[in-house]
Amino acid sequence: MPGISHEAEIGESSRLISANKVEGTAVYNRKGDKLGTVEDIMIDKYTGQVGYAVMSFGGFLGIGDKHHPLPWQVLDYDPKMGGYVVDLDKKQLEGAPSYATDEDPDWEDRVWGKRVHDYYNVPPYWI
Amino acid sequence: MPGISHEAEIGESSRLISANKVEGTAVYNRKGDKLGTVEDIMIDKYTGQVGYAVMSFGGFLGIGDKHHPLPWQVLDYDPKMGGYVVDLDKKQLEGAPSYATDEDPDWEDRVWGKRVHDYYNVPPYWI
Repeated sequence: MPGISHEAEIGESSRLISANKVEGTAVYNRKGDKLGTVEDIMIDKYTGQVGYAVMSFGGFLGIGDKHHPLPWQVLDYDPKMGGYVVDLDKKQLEGAPSYATDEDPDWEDRVWGKRVHDYYNVPPYWI
Repeated sequence: MPGISHEAEIGESSRLISANKVEGTAVYNRKGDKLGTVEDIMIDKYTGQVGYAVMSFGGFLGIGDKHHPLPWQVLDYDPKMGGYVVDLDKKQLEGAPSYATDEDPDWEDRVWGKRVHDYYNVPPYWI
């Protein structure tokens, strides 16, 4: 993809980060276990506010993958890890809101959205 | 990439849009001329607010490409065009803030950021 060179140069000290760079970045818990990889970012079209980073893990060739919508605020970049760290152990992740590859969550459903944010103890992005 | 199937199903009526879907989408002007393609999205790490969509055009194999940071608000999705429409003719685009592939804009420079937003007559994303 053209233009990748300048993105590679954007330091972690920068306040603005490239979506291309976020996607594909590993997500760890505080113990250093890899929980998954950021596969996508969901953006509110009208306000330009990021709603969720979608983390995926598991499965094989996309089959059996689980997708976890993570509120943007829970992702904490750790330069030493070279990835995001979230305060969540593997067991907590099992109970976290997720969907399968062939499922299409209703992103507009604010009851569901509120539940996702509540799980991570952060206020909903739309507030 | 795993998980693409559910993204393909997210309709344009949805308030949340996938960054993967925005990237690669064509940008047209009101006359229907193709101005370029969205190649990246710059996000404020701390607030989760989208700062810019970066549109690229021209060049060959990435050489000579120009990259235009567009304030998120100026992108208006047109389902009939299957792309974004911006209120900008090709001549206006020539004068618009841009950078070359081997340049790394100082995204933190708010004087530069203000100039970008002023060019498109929209308030800066950080206000």
